[in-house]
Amino acid sequence: MAEVGPLVLLTDFGLGDPYVGVMHGVIACHAPGARVIDLTHGVPPQAVGLAALFLARTRRHFPRGSIFVAVVDPGVGSKRRVLAAQDDGQCFLAPDNGLMAPALGPAARVRAVDVARHVPSPESRTFHGRDVFCPLAARLASGSLAFPDLGPLVGDAQPLELRAPTRQGARVRGEVLFVDHFGNLITNVEPAALEGLPGHWRAEFQGRRLPWVETYAEARAGEASILVNSYGLLEIAVPSASAARTLGCGVGAAVEFERQANPNPSLP
Amino acid sequence: MAEVGPLVLLTDFGLGDPYVGVMHGVIACHAPGARVIDLTHGVPPQAVGLAALFLARTRRHFPRGSIFVAVVDPGVGSKRRVLAAQDDGQCFLAPDNGLMAPALGPAARVRAVDVARHVPSPESRTFHGRDVFCPLAARLASGSLAFPDLGPLVGDAQPLELRAPTRQGARVRGEVLFVDHFGNLITNVEPAALEGLPGHWRAEFQGRRLPWVETYAEARAGEASILVNSYGLLEIAVPSASAARTLGCGVGAAVEFERQANPNPSLP
Amino acid sequence: MAEVGPLVLLTDFGLGDPYVGVMHGVIACHAPGARVIDLTHGVPPQAVGLAALFLARTRRHFPRGSIFVAVVDPGVGSKRRVLAAQDDGQCFLAPDNGLMAPALGPAARVRAVDVARHVPSPESRTFHGRDVFCPLAARLASGSLAFPDLGPLVGDAQPLELRAPTRQGARVRGEVLFVDHFGNLITNVEPAALEGLPGHWRAEFQGRRLPWVETYAEARAGEASILVNSYGLLEIAVPSASAARTLGCGVGAAVEFERQANPNPSLP
Repeated sequence: MAEVGPLVLLTDFGLGDPYVGVMHGVIACHAPGARVIDLTHGVPPQAVGLAALFLARTRRHFPRGSIFVAVVDPGVGSKRRVLAAQDDGQCFLAPDNGLMAPALGPAARVRAVDVARHVPSPESRTFHGRDVFCPLAARLASGSLAFPDLGPLVGDAQPLELRAPTRQGARVRGEVLFVDHFGNLITNVEPAALEGLPGHWRAEFQGRRLPWVETYAEARAGEASILVNSYGLLEIAVPSASAARTLGCGVGAAVEFERQANPNPSLP
Repeated sequence: MAEVGPLVLLTDFGLGDPYVGVMHGVIACHAPGARVIDLTHGVPPQAVGLAALFLARTRRHFPRGSIFVAVVDPGVGSKRRVLAAQDDGQCFLAPDNGLMAPALGPAARVRAVDVARHVPSPESRTFHGRDVFCPLAARLASGSLAFPDLGPLVGDAQPLELRAPTRQGARVRGEVLFVDHFGNLITNVEPAALEGLPGHWRAEFQGRRLPWVETYAEARAGEASILVNSYGLLEIAVPSASAARTLGCGVGAAVEFERQANPNPSLP
Repeated sequence: MAEVGPLVLLTDFGLGDPYVGVMHGVIACHAPGARVIDLTHGVPPQAVGLAALFLARTRRHFPRGSIFVAVVDPGVGSKRRVLAAQDDGQCFLAPDNGLMAPALGPAARVRAVDVARHVPSPESRTFHGRDVFCPLAARLASGSLAFPDLGPLVGDAQPLELRAPTRQGARVRGEVLFVDHFGNLITNVEPAALEGLPGHWRAEFQGRRLPWVETYAEARAGEASILVNSYGLLEIAVPSASAARTLGCGVGAAVEFERQANPNPSLP
């Protein structure tokens, strides 16, 4: 990799314990000059699918040469493999549990890391973020380890299917994937699932029709509305309030769309 | 700006989502060498006034050349302007909602950013921290954009009046502005509102008299006391406990001061 | 100190307020090039003992030259001393309340910082993290202050006894020291307290026997198990769940071990 960008950490470790700080320490031991960015450590414990979504939807905002270290790893210490991938100028390290799958394009090269060779005696079997992933990433960043030497190319990485919306004729049904810090309800529906013309569809959530808006400021005070958010996903929001609290619902709640004969012409 | 200091981020985005990490990524794309400091991302959602207070009270602890990126932005994507200011060797970027107003001195130069020119097609209309503010700040830091080129000087930036204490004769009445991590109750009263001699005033909160102390250690165990805190504001604290929980009150609670004929001579 | 590594911050300040960000700002003022790592700011308020444990158990994951700034400081602004220590190539700054004691080896050199000389007029008496500790650490990092000049060597630093397990014949009794982000119950028992052979001991918690495992993945779904964790402490965990919530208990809960005549031969 010609350019070496930041190491980008994504975990479910939280910030209340020293786990993340220690990973920064290990990186500083192996690559004192490396820049480290915390993508987030707020993935709910063991939520591999949500971490995968975050990685897939945010990698494009990081520079070429970035090395993503994504550790949501219920199988830590078991025989699960450690994968490394190169794709479009960026590098990824993660356990082989599907975490990196949705982020990778069809040209990605994926390797099964020869952990026994590169980290012959990890200190623990319960914290590979510290003992395996960060040392490997830091050595990639510092140039003391080359990507092709990590291990053999593999074609059988664990897939991960993010829950996709379903379509029946003129109806599309999606669901809330997660609730963000603001209480916004982020769904699994992309505008493409609505033929790229969301305004042509009637949106219904919890028995109420949701008006389409383009910005939070455009929604009427207190009114649950729907928009395309910055992840490129449809999101239910209540301006200056928590939609989750206002509507009393969260992850898994269904959202339905019905194609309209007479679409609202003013909306996206 | 001769010296380029750190980019300093202040938002209400929290750390549980990838929003803040993505802003770091965007900065790394535009200004790979820039240093970034997170002032805090714990401003309560949409609390522009509290963010403004944090900015005004903390900017002096950052070096000359610092570029503050303050994004608490309920109007994101609407026609609200983006402002940039230079003041006393530091630079500020924020939406035009009063956020930067209390931080700026009388000599500040404030510009309305020509967003259409500098960021002709922001990716989203809901996340300008990522799509507008950070790219602008990073380009200022890297020198590829000069402050005077951002846009025209303006004199009509949105003001913001922080709730001030009221005075009637020998009585001053303030209120709790926010509760910090320790449960301390931070009020809107500066020592100056008590003529710089707080010890000459009797402090009353929730019907109880508060003794003046200078340090937390000086207060009696379990006893709510009042002191000048590190923001330069009067604060009600209970040593080694949460005043908010102990006293059962929080933001908006009134605190009253009455000038004493026979002041306690030993206190500030 | 020949090598200057990162400044490593450990506090009970949380991340919801600007306290930690301001410390980064102060460091940037005094040592613009210094690298700063947040070990964690999630120590519960005033929990000196837990901070001491975190420091003692994690320092080995940081490079030589690291300067730890550990501020859990209920006595801030009182006459309590500020200590600085050098030990095995790393440096420590902390209040004299036992915080650094368990981290230091027998060869550590501990000095009482002459605060009146080096920080003659700290801005506040309530936030020495900002006004005393970070300026000192940054000046050590930048080389403008040398460790031996900080103040005289002392031999009477405040000790701190972490609660140790008790042993009676073939029985060892420990307790839960803290609950981590995942709800794992971390005890004060090291494998050494079980003669380095934990599998030879029967573990009992809340009236139930705990099976020994080596990884989270090895435990049976929903079953509370016990393992040696990445701190080198015995930990009670429920795979993919919070042990604290599943078992309904937390800090202080007792865990008991009894040496077995016929040990399970397959376990550690």
